[in-house]
Amino acid sequence: MVSITAASVTDLRFPTNRTLAGSDAMNPDPDYSAAYLELSTSDPDLTGCGFVFTIGRGNDIQAAAVTAVADRLVGRNLDGLLEDPSALNRELTWDSQLRWLGPDKGVMHMAVGAVMNAVWDLRSRREGRPLWSTLVHLEPAEVVALVDWTYLADFLDPARARELLEERRSERDSRVALLRRDGLAAYTTSPGWLGYDDNKLDRLCRRALDDGFSTIKLKVGADLADDRRRLGIARRAIGPDTALAIDANQRWGVPQAINAIEQLARFDLRWVEEPTHPDDIVGHATIAKAVHPVPIATGEHLANPTMAKQLLQLRGAQILQIDATRVAGVHDLVAMILLAAHAGADVIPHAGGVGLCEAVQHFAFFNAASVAADPSRLSLEYVEHLHEHMAQPVKVTAGRYRIPTQPGAGTAFHPTTADSFAYPAGAHWQQ
Amino acid sequence: MVSITAASVTDLRFPTNRTLAGSDAMNPDPDYSAAYLELSTSDPDLTGCGFVFTIGRGNDIQAAAVTAVADRLVGRNLDGLLEDPSALNRELTWDSQLRWLGPDKGVMHMAVGAVMNAVWDLRSRREGRPLWSTLVHLEPAEVVALVDWTYLADFLDPARARELLEERRSERDSRVALLRRDGLAAYTTSPGWLGYDDNKLDRLCRRALDDGFSTIKLKVGADLADDRRRLGIARRAIGPDTALAIDANQRWGVPQAINAIEQLARFDLRWVEEPTHPDDIVGHATIAKAVHPVPIATGEHLANPTMAKQLLQLRGAQILQIDATRVAGVHDLVAMILLAAHAGADVIPHAGGVGLCEAVQHFAFFNAASVAADPSRLSLEYVEHLHEHMAQPVKVTAGRYRIPTQPGAGTAFHPTTADSFAYPAGAHWQQ
Repeated sequence: MVSITAASVTDLRFPTNRTLAGSDAMNPDPDYSAAYLELSTSDPDLTGCGFVFTIGRGNDIQAAAVTAVADRLVGRNLDGLLEDPSALNRELTWDSQLRWLGPDKGVMHMAVGAVMNAVWDLRSRREGRPLWSTLVHLEPAEVVALVDWTYLADFLDPARARELLEERRSERDSRVALLRRDGLAAYTTSPGWLGYDDNKLDRLCRRALDDGFSTIKLKVGADLADDRRRLGIARRAIGPDTALAIDANQRWGVPQAINAIEQLARFDLRWVEEPTHPDDIVGHATIAKAVHPVPIATGEHLANPTMAKQLLQLRGAQILQIDATRVAGVHDLVAMILLAAHAGADVIPHAGGVGLCEAVQHFAFFNAASVAADPSRLSLEYVEHLHEHMAQPVKVTAGRYRIPTQPGAGTAFHPTTADSFAYPAGAHWQQ
Repeated sequence: MVSITAASVTDLRFPTNRTLAGSDAMNPDPDYSAAYLELSTSDPDLTGCGFVFTIGRGNDIQAAAVTAVADRLVGRNLDGLLEDPSALNRELTWDSQLRWLGPDKGVMHMAVGAVMNAVWDLRSRREGRPLWSTLVHLEPAEVVALVDWTYLADFLDPARARELLEERRSERDSRVALLRRDGLAAYTTSPGWLGYDDNKLDRLCRRALDDGFSTIKLKVGADLADDRRRLGIARRAIGPDTALAIDANQRWGVPQAINAIEQLARFDLRWVEEPTHPDDIVGHATIAKAVHPVPIATGEHLANPTMAKQLLQLRGAQILQIDATRVAGVHDLVAMILLAAHAGADVIPHAGGVGLCEAVQHFAFFNAASVAADPSRLSLEYVEHLHEHMAQPVKVTAGRYRIPTQPGAGTAFHPTTADSFAYPAGAHWQQ
């Protein structure tokens, strides 16, 4: 019998604001951070990790919330928890007192996500598989049972979700073989941060092309004239055959979004990301209808599957950008992947930050292998910095994510990272 | 010159779960709590208070978040802050790093609410007025300027909001005179907690009638047969002329809600509250259409004005139940009141808990005096317990809230409450 013996939470912060990597119209000075959880067990070789990505101030509050949730697991039997992770998911998300602080959103919901992802990290490590493989090897009925259908069944009936998974089942092994061989397309946001000057933008666009990326994303939304100029530079640099997406990071109201997208559409946009407030489902639907056929993308700030359901019901987005640490972890993410498949929307996850690429790739590969109608339409965000802080950094070569092969959920930080970047005690912050 | 000299935050918890007062289908065992902020100033007679109401576990996380936001005010000039509270509101809600933890929802957004409400408490105390009066004395343009219109203007144009306020302006003084004389109707939830047995329900319904209440609300949603039986008892106790509302506290999915409301409608329901998840705007619209003309009510868990906007756009609710501590305080609440007026929805605030009646009554009186089309349609929730812990307890007589007359926002707790109920150091929790 293995039991959970301790929950250790570390406030990790990286001084990214010094380089303006990560700068966008909404977030001018992020210090990429993580409220990082390690669950120790009575097996000294078995630790499970999870985290919430934040951008600096408030990471201590997030860490306190992760501690509050994770402490409930200490002393419990791991085998019992892993036998029915949905029961644990329900216990944590339906705890009435903690739920009051959302419900199902914000600091407390993300804290549950860190804990649930750490539990699934433990499960995959014990199985000796990467998380995507753990998920791919579940039977359709088991996948359906992961989801809390309480507020979703009016859009996607669980029986229909199971049918959908069973329809894909025969392709599973050949899809996995293809993903093992070719990986999954990455797209890069590295050239397009708003803080970069025009020369750097041009240079990085050309370099992205050389590196094999077939989609490049630019941040927009601070100034429309700047956006037009920068999109012109990017389009000239990459030519007509590379896809170009833009990300407004919520800076527009609904009419401003429609106006801006109409003015920028001539640059042939693969998608427009976060055109307005992520909670404004009705606004997204209005925008999507007005700018059709330009696809609308959002998701990194969607608080829970109930929000995703409505976005898809109203056709407010054609691309759902799930994020590994915004929601309550594996169970919410599986729900969102199934909802997107039902709606015919593509899941193109949000990544970047620190650790997000490592964590979310497992859900992208699971979706490509077991759920999506057409895996060739899928891709996954890639930002090249901070991977050295992860225990198992992603492998991206020739513009493609290579399928993870090591056990676990990709959520472990490098063992020495905390020595330098724990806040405020780490060596970097003490200088 | 007066400056803010300290921000003190106390974790207050009251052992309400022992009596089942406050029990409902979603919250079986609440310990009513408050993350309570006191802003001290260089004027020893001037302190500003704000709080976030929670139901127990996690109140420490909420308190830490309030501290993180409030600490930014320490050392600053109060006159400068009060000259342009919208600038402060924008500074706190648009802080990109803290905003990432929502955005505009959950623990961090409610923390901003406690701080902004404490700042307005200071403003009203300096003016020597109750908060409702401070708001009523603002010019229409000043009220409009309190609101952040970024994500709202596609539904309600600020110019139209100003017109609406100007249309009501001529009635203001006569409305205030009437409110001073007659107060505002209270409705009571005290008889209807789910944990009470049938005899207690019957007895408390009759007592509510004797106490002068014209609307009584029952909790439902755990079991439909129980709900029918309890509604029968209540309706028999109060007769046909007293209004009867029900509150499902989010327990139903969309089809279950429609089914339940169809079965309960024969009890002549004034409204059905929180039929499903508060984030499910589309679901509320589906339910409202299906059960028309039964009015749908929600709002106590609506995270922000962007959510309220959509609820009103899609006609998902005919009654908007604003809560004093769920959103980012005065500015969000004024926005929601204006949106409701524009949509023709009634604002019937959520209260109860601890301190919520004292705080939200100011917004109800402001709405009745300056905004609502027909104040006679309005009421305000009343729950009779825990008022002894507030410095200025509400006055409810003959089923009506009496207009507050003391300066401030009603947000101050009684000076001796913390001695007993600070958690875990208070005398009660040390026993």
